[in-house]
Amino acid sequence: MIKVVIIGSGNVAQHLIAAFQNPHRPGTEIELVQVYSRQIKSVSHLIDLEKVTNNFNTLVEADIYIISVSDDAIAEVSSNLAFKNRLVVHTSGSVSLHALDENNRRGVFYPLQTFTKNKVVDFNIIPICLESENGIDYELLDKVAKSISGTVYAINSEQRKALHVVAVFVNNFTNHLYQIGQEICQEHQVPFEILRPLIAETVRKIMVLSPQEAQTGPAKRNDTSTIEAHEAFLSNENHLTIYKILTQSIQENGKKL
Amino acid sequence: MIKVVIIGSGNVAQHLIAAFQNPHRPGTEIELVQVYSRQIKSVSHLIDLEKVTNNFNTLVEADIYIISVSDDAIAEVSSNLAFKNRLVVHTSGSVSLHALDENNRRGVFYPLQTFTKNKVVDFNIIPICLESENGIDYELLDKVAKSISGTVYAINSEQRKALHVVAVFVNNFTNHLYQIGQEICQEHQVPFEILRPLIAETVRKIMVLSPQEAQTGPAKRNDTSTIEAHEAFLSNENHLTIYKILTQSIQENGKKL
Repeated sequence: MIKVVIIGSGNVAQHLIAAFQNPHRPGTEIELVQVYSRQIKSVSHLIDLEKVTNNFNTLVEADIYIISVSDDAIAEVSSNLAFKNRLVVHTSGSVSLHALDENNRRGVFYPLQTFTKNKVVDFNIIPICLESENGIDYELLDKVAKSISGTVYAINSEQRKALHVVAVFVNNFTNHLYQIGQEICQEHQVPFEILRPLIAETVRKIMVLSPQEAQTGPAKRNDTSTIEAHEAFLSNENHLTIYKILTQSIQENGKKL
Repeated sequence: MIKVVIIGSGNVAQHLIAAFQNPHRPGTEIELVQVYSRQIKSVSHLIDLEKVTNNFNTLVEADIYIISVSDDAIAEVSSNLAFKNRLVVHTSGSVSLHALDENNRRGVFYPLQTFTKNKVVDFNIIPICLESENGIDYELLDKVAKSISGTVYAINSEQRKALHVVAVFVNNFTNHLYQIGQEICQEHQVPFEILRPLIAETVRKIMVLSPQEAQTGPAKRNDTSTIEAHEAFLSNENHLTIYKILTQSIQENGKKL
């Protein structure tokens, strides 16, 4: 039996608690033995209250402690742990393994996904990126990760930084392009809903094609007259700047091929 | 019986031919009576050859002629039609209704979707944006559009221009962000596949939330230290420029709220 403790009660912590309560592979002997939450109430809908503590000194013994708190708090929380030489990991995409206090064996357990509070996600399809300081700890992390997810990767700190930046591009930035789209729709009294099937198809394409194969549009075709018409149409300076820069970037890419 | 002729054999034309051959609402009395294609062979897999012509002078009489050719060719093709006062529409998002020759009644039949050759799409969920010069023609267009799609909108030229620009943002530009993501992955030897579940979830969110509600990430949180770490990490000038501009745009949006 592998005993897991989760420290934290935020968005990612809550999704992890739910996933470990209902593991994908029930045969795997993983048990979530305790959750640390400053506000005990905030996880009471997820786990029996007797398994919840708000006192670091009452943390039980476990094989792995998963610190799932905001990036800024990881170092401090890890230094608050009153034990030594146990496996302690964090769940952040952008924080180094070395941010964790060196009193314990350190690792990273980074689920690469955007989590929305109260929106159930299928953890089985969420990639979990693992890092550890030694092979035995890696094997332990691997077992724990595979109990909730079908896709587990060994990712070092440098690669994890790259993934975190890429996540900003493909998640935060694409969402911002949707936001700009909605602003233009509102300006011209068109319902944004009309665009949803196009958005869905754009993503269906990227599931089977490379971004290069999937690229279409006036910039890709070097269709100067359409590009000029679009630029003349955009009344918002900020929208225009972004239009120009992304168009130019697509055109430069075309030249490289 | 409403008789339809399609003029063109490109990507959109081929998807329209397939859709009219297999209409969503078979009860509707719509018939694709003829297809004009310069190269007869290019549509031979879609329709009986006896219904295909490569000669404008042999176009049969019909209730509606759908010109689905490249934007540049619309005006010329419409002026090659040897008849008058019939309903002639084009399928472009960016070309004015007035580009069509005024010898005939004019309209627009714009399916708002990204079409990939040889990839079947479910036309029923593709919004079709209609425009005409009078109400009777609109009714006809509406019947024809509703025979293949469940979502049909009256969209004037100004709104259609807006939609076309927005389509560039939410389709072409988001795909380019995937491309940048892939470039960063390659540089750091991470498989781009790890990002696919995140991309899929980003889009699932936008189907139920507004872009504003769905926005997350360091720019949204004004997490300066993560933003600075990302900027220091990006070695490609172009990636860095795009990162900075989109981050700034998200931050400016936050201030407006």
